[in-house]
Amino acid sequence: MRDVAIIGIGCTNFGELWDKSFRDIFVEAGVMAIEDAGVQGEEIDAIYLGNMSAGRFIEQEHLASLAADYAGLASINIPSTRVEAACASGGLALRQAVLAVASGYHDIVIAGGAEKMTDVDTDATTDVLAAAADREWEGIMGATFPSIYAMIARLHMHKYGTTSEQLAAVAVKNHYNASMNSRAQYQSPVSIENVLNSSLIADPLHLLDCSPITDGAAAVIVAPAEIAKQYTDTPIHILASTQTSSTIALHDRKDITTLDSTVVAANKAFNTAKLTPGDIDIAEVHDCFTIAEILAIEDIGFFKKGEGGKATEDGLTAIGAEIPVNASGGLKACGHPVGATGIKQAVEIAEQLRGEAGRRQVEGAEIGLIHNVGGSGGTAVIHILST
Amino acid sequence: MRDVAIIGIGCTNFGELWDKSFRDIFVEAGVMAIEDAGVQGEEIDAIYLGNMSAGRFIEQEHLASLAADYAGLASINIPSTRVEAACASGGLALRQAVLAVASGYHDIVIAGGAEKMTDVDTDATTDVLAAAADREWEGIMGATFPSIYAMIARLHMHKYGTTSEQLAAVAVKNHYNASMNSRAQYQSPVSIENVLNSSLIADPLHLLDCSPITDGAAAVIVAPAEIAKQYTDTPIHILASTQTSSTIALHDRKDITTLDSTVVAANKAFNTAKLTPGDIDIAEVHDCFTIAEILAIEDIGFFKKGEGGKATEDGLTAIGAEIPVNASGGLKACGHPVGATGIKQAVEIAEQLRGEAGRRQVEGAEIGLIHNVGGSGGTAVIHILST
Repeated sequence: MRDVAIIGIGCTNFGELWDKSFRDIFVEAGVMAIEDAGVQGEEIDAIYLGNMSAGRFIEQEHLASLAADYAGLASINIPSTRVEAACASGGLALRQAVLAVASGYHDIVIAGGAEKMTDVDTDATTDVLAAAADREWEGIMGATFPSIYAMIARLHMHKYGTTSEQLAAVAVKNHYNASMNSRAQYQSPVSIENVLNSSLIADPLHLLDCSPITDGAAAVIVAPAEIAKQYTDTPIHILASTQTSSTIALHDRKDITTLDSTVVAANKAFNTAKLTPGDIDIAEVHDCFTIAEILAIEDIGFFKKGEGGKATEDGLTAIGAEIPVNASGGLKACGHPVGATGIKQAVEIAEQLRGEAGRRQVEGAEIGLIHNVGGSGGTAVIHILST
Repeated sequence: MRDVAIIGIGCTNFGELWDKSFRDIFVEAGVMAIEDAGVQGEEIDAIYLGNMSAGRFIEQEHLASLAADYAGLASINIPSTRVEAACASGGLALRQAVLAVASGYHDIVIAGGAEKMTDVDTDATTDVLAAAADREWEGIMGATFPSIYAMIARLHMHKYGTTSEQLAAVAVKNHYNASMNSRAQYQSPVSIENVLNSSLIADPLHLLDCSPITDGAAAVIVAPAEIAKQYTDTPIHILASTQTSSTIALHDRKDITTLDSTVVAANKAFNTAKLTPGDIDIAEVHDCFTIAEILAIEDIGFFKKGEGGKATEDGLTAIGAEIPVNASGGLKACGHPVGATGIKQAVEIAEQLRGEAGRRQVEGAEIGLIHNVGGSGGTAVIHILST
């Protein structure tokens, strides 16, 4: 196996991009990554594109062909593959690209993620997203993702004493971080009171406990580590790339206050990289809801089970603290274009490790972790990156 | 790179399976493949699942998690990845599985394909399938796949003198072959007159020039060739696995009477396997319409451009003739559950090379080729298999 490094990154602004189409945004992100890496389009050997549901959002499938075509690479008949695992589609695209390069099949590969969610109305979007859960056992009964994560939150509160204020502290931190991120969908800080007084969506989750509906795209270019220095002075090395599954439905889990897919993916990633959670300087985790960030920081091993809410309330996950989590603003405030999220996380960590994150820079960050989840944990993908 | 072999195969009956759900059929095919290989479920290291549009057909995404869960493999947190390239989704799943094993990342991998198409009405199905074309430049203008392939057929007739009778000869051969395949959707032979007298769908294509709407699933298990003999006396070796793209829309091609994605994928596959078209004993090609089979047998190199229609009319692609094509009945008569097709082609060729194809057996077949296309050629995938 060859070592693999990220040599280029690109990301659109996240938000309601009504003046741009799906094909506009993935080309925009891809071209940024290509220019950042200083590669020629013809040097690219393969494309992996993460997308959850363009079939329903914009009635377009065959996205890999569309991507190759609109990237101007159809003329070289480039192999192009779309992967999907709901909100973990981006993470899967990165992992497939890493696998393709590590194996020696390909040298320079672009891993992208894109989702255009705002071209249908909000009710439709909620139903499309519910397709990440078990349609026959959850969706048909009326379960949507806010209600699924609300059940998780309620039991976490019951078992561990987690409070609404602690959930809100996740949102407050992530909105504050996003205020220093010019790509973020929401750049206004919020207070604990703002969160608690926002509309109740699914008790105990308020509107500001939920990630938004977002358009956006991101791309990274990966290459064998041995040639990465030809393209960049700051290659970002991929130390581990792991992917796991679990039951798609919540009712089949032994314990819904932990995502076993995250626990196993994290253990495998730390074993592969020969590191422990204490070695990580910065993390982007999958905070589709505030409770999800608390699960993540516990399940990855940054904090003991049940102590994630208190740790957040105590400021231990802020920029400059023990383990800065979601410096980008996370899914919560930077936005969550589902297929793009896993790749945007990689872009953020790469920028941080390069020292190019501006006002939200985590000083001295050398090792970063990315955690991307599909649905309520039916899929988890973890990458560990280093300078 | 390690050599890779198929050690187990499984395939459901193809047809209107109204008494079975999506999850029923992929589990059925997967269990058949697992039993055929004699592996334990826990020995499987990864799943790749090809599916085009379960999001729209059954409102379910996150299919990889669903597959792992209903296959009983969520308990081992198996990495499970859905890939999509319209009708080439199955071919992509096989190629990703081959790549995962060849690279040494995984040892025993299941590549499956499944599509449940008959749970929505026919108009909706046609629109779902049109999402494999360019929605903004083709679909919105009213183009559906019969009309897109009709344009190809019309120009092929104009340039090369191909006739409606020659197109019909593809259907006649494939329906005859399917009459010997107990899994096929249509097991009744048809005549040239039947085809020419069937409803005109998009001039010059009649109803019997078109592949049907089908439910079905298929699965193969791949492993390193060096350990394949531990599982089976008849491993089927994968000599080449290539994937290409082209423009998603027809109007951007230099010549619409050839699929450049097929030409390039075939050339690469023959180079990799150090073989020529003349070395192939049997082929399953992507006959979504009768004209598509004629393009395929020309673009792969079995016949010169423009001579595919005549060759078919002369019986050169029948079982027992020069190059038997679509002994299974093809997409045309065996059926075309889009995401399953590429894997079902592999099952058919594996059965033929094992000498287990019963009445439709191609005697002495030792080397077979599989050709799977997405849309109108925006993606092409070719595999070459041998005993």
